[in-house]
Amino acid sequence: MAVKKNGRNARPEIPRKTVYRLSIYTRCLQRLLANGIHTVSSEALAGAAGVKSPQLRKDLAYFGQFGTRGLGYDVEQLIQMIADLLGTDHLQPVVLVGVGNLGTALLSYRGFEKEGFGVLAAFDVQHDRQRDKRVTQPIFPMEKLGHYVAENHVRMAILCVPPEEAQEVVNELVDAGVTGIMNFAPTVLQVPDEVTVNNVNMAIELENLSYFIQQ
Amino acid sequence: MAVKKNGRNARPEIPRKTVYRLSIYTRCLQRLLANGIHTVSSEALAGAAGVKSPQLRKDLAYFGQFGTRGLGYDVEQLIQMIADLLGTDHLQPVVLVGVGNLGTALLSYRGFEKEGFGVLAAFDVQHDRQRDKRVTQPIFPMEKLGHYVAENHVRMAILCVPPEEAQEVVNELVDAGVTGIMNFAPTVLQVPDEVTVNNVNMAIELENLSYFIQQ
Repeated sequence: MAVKKNGRNARPEIPRKTVYRLSIYTRCLQRLLANGIHTVSSEALAGAAGVKSPQLRKDLAYFGQFGTRGLGYDVEQLIQMIADLLGTDHLQPVVLVGVGNLGTALLSYRGFEKEGFGVLAAFDVQHDRQRDKRVTQPIFPMEKLGHYVAENHVRMAILCVPPEEAQEVVNELVDAGVTGIMNFAPTVLQVPDEVTVNNVNMAIELENLSYFIQQ
Repeated sequence: MAVKKNGRNARPEIPRKTVYRLSIYTRCLQRLLANGIHTVSSEALAGAAGVKSPQLRKDLAYFGQFGTRGLGYDVEQLIQMIADLLGTDHLQPVVLVGVGNLGTALLSYRGFEKEGFGVLAAFDVQHDRQRDKRVTQPIFPMEKLGHYVAENHVRMAILCVPPEEAQEVVNELVDAGVTGIMNFAPTVLQVPDEVTVNNVNMAIELENLSYFIQQ
């Protein structure tokens, strides 16, 4: 397989949209497996994922040729290959910065763990403020952020600070070794090329919908 | 102005990405206003929003010509025009369906209200289950969903149900008159052309980052 030819770290250059679709395929495959289905055609998997089957075949071609003509894909093998590629086959440590309303909500959300992301610790300027009892992670003062990230080899961070503080926190995270940031702060972050930022702005998503519902 | 020529409901056809950028511009403009700045050049606003200034000028051209050469844009006027276009100049009623971990977290999140979206009520199959005390909205059984949406002229919904239930709930929402859905369920929804779905999948965003941090 193309992906393994040069060892684990020589990953193929896959566009971001393809990586998103691989996540969707995985969820469809897991549902198939839960229903006792062990092989799937590209047409059936494409249908379940809401894409056209040439798109699916193109996306899976990054793994090299492994589907059997007339038989389709091995469900378990494909799940494993995608997990290996995405790096979700092992627990990924994450820190969360900014424990306000949204940060608190995300800390008490159990969905991340289920997907293999462990939010180890959170950081806030008011680290000792009284919070929701369902938050079980330790909350540290901001001064400990850089050291903690470096010490624990954390590469991913969830950012929920106010927009005016976001860039400063990002600089600190990047200096400490973080290369992936899920940004909930409604602002544009400047990062070096090797750092990836995924922006999730729920208010902006709602505003966007608000425009389209008035058409 | 092009936008008002045909009355409020004859909105120009604006691409989704442009609508997203308008939301970003609004936030930058609000920060300028808070700092006592009342006019801004396209270069300065573009810089604050992290876009190139030809892009900004193209985006704002949907409003017709209103910047004054050499003086720039009137900050307050531009905020008002964008709010009018996005429909955020009045409170937008929203329902939330599926009050599990994530739904509960979103109900207790105060950020939506601040942006002009009022989550009026929530719906769940287990509507009378004990929940977080910070949730102040009423939680109704699923049977009341369609009637409530129609009765209260709700056009927007936040969907946090399990993926296997999502399509059925969406059909009901659409039948009752919802035309904008913010979907947190990790699945692909089928909707008529006039309905807009914005997918927000936090686990998928994390998985996506997980791939890129390993490059």
